[in-house]
Amino acid sequence: MKKGRLIVISGPSGVGKGTVVKGLLARDPNTWLSVSATTRAIRPSETDGVQYHFISHEQFDRMIAEGQFLEYARYVNNCYGSPLEPIEQKLAEGRDVLLEIEVQGALQIKQKRPEAITVFIAAPSFEALAARLRGRRDTDEAAIALRLETAKEEYRIAPQYDYIVVNDDIETAVADVAAILRADTLRAENHLKELSLGGN
Amino acid sequence: MKKGRLIVISGPSGVGKGTVVKGLLARDPNTWLSVSATTRAIRPSETDGVQYHFISHEQFDRMIAEGQFLEYARYVNNCYGSPLEPIEQKLAEGRDVLLEIEVQGALQIKQKRPEAITVFIAAPSFEALAARLRGRRDTDEAAIALRLETAKEEYRIAPQYDYIVVNDDIETAVADVAAILRADTLRAENHLKELSLGGN
Repeated sequence: MKKGRLIVISGPSGVGKGTVVKGLLARDPNTWLSVSATTRAIRPSETDGVQYHFISHEQFDRMIAEGQFLEYARYVNNCYGSPLEPIEQKLAEGRDVLLEIEVQGALQIKQKRPEAITVFIAAPSFEALAARLRGRRDTDEAAIALRLETAKEEYRIAPQYDYIVVNDDIETAVADVAAILRADTLRAENHLKELSLGGN
Repeated sequence: MKKGRLIVISGPSGVGKGTVVKGLLARDPNTWLSVSATTRAIRPSETDGVQYHFISHEQFDRMIAEGQFLEYARYVNNCYGSPLEPIEQKLAEGRDVLLEIEVQGALQIKQKRPEAITVFIAAPSFEALAARLRGRRDTDEAAIALRLETAKEEYRIAPQYDYIVVNDDIETAVADVAAILRADTLRAENHLKELSLGGN
């Protein structure tokens, strides 16, 4: 069976990564979304094991030591990591695996797995990003200022991704990522083994 | 102004390259189709300067000698070439240029212009290709047999293209090439200069 693809959706906090990911999952039910582990506090709207596996700093450090993360990152005092085992399992089943992760982790994955498809989701402008962060009721102004500073750094890293998609209109952004994934399927090097090209 | 892209649509005779190209032109009026020069006889349905510039073998040889072709190929006793000057002009105007050409010429272009996007249009099967060639009333059985032999050779070259699109359903094939072109636009290296990425 053909292995699935590792697809990394990344970009600054507040840029709408989660909405893009939801759109992609709705388009292709064969795609599986990796659930990250995090040490950050659970929000009232969240359920453990759905948005994240909420774990302690001690558990997180143990998983690092045991090599149980495909990538992990420390970000604004909290840690985020992608557990390796379920990802490998889904890829082996031929399912595409989506990772919605922060910028540090995305670069780790591209180094470890050059075949991963990495997409940086950008805001149409810095002002738009600030407005979106302010729209989140559970984030205070100090946290927003820190996130915006971090975002500036992250934009400098965007050229290291394979693709950059501007999330101005969500439908367009989802269609753009879908086009990236379709085009990847059609690349001659990926495509040829599946074709009989009858007559040879 | 950003230069246009050179897009090569190629593949065996009878595979439906022309129909794919029509679909692409309808989707994006900013795309310009290069009109090839050929030494082959004009068909009753054709108009000089529309499907091809119909020229003599002497004219063709003179254009080769003067370096007036981006690519040219000898194919089944006839010559085909893409006049360079109008292509350069449209690219400079920022228009994408489509080339609907045979396999020999496509490989020449990829060597000369590695940035060109090359797409091999494949038939869903060898039998489907034979049936399509027989459906052309102005092609006799001997010519069909020769084209099928040529097609076998061409399929072996398909891995040297950037992309392979199977033309089973024409709507899907056109959408596939459109996805390839959209994804190319979104590649970080192509995309970044156009983004302000506000805040830097």
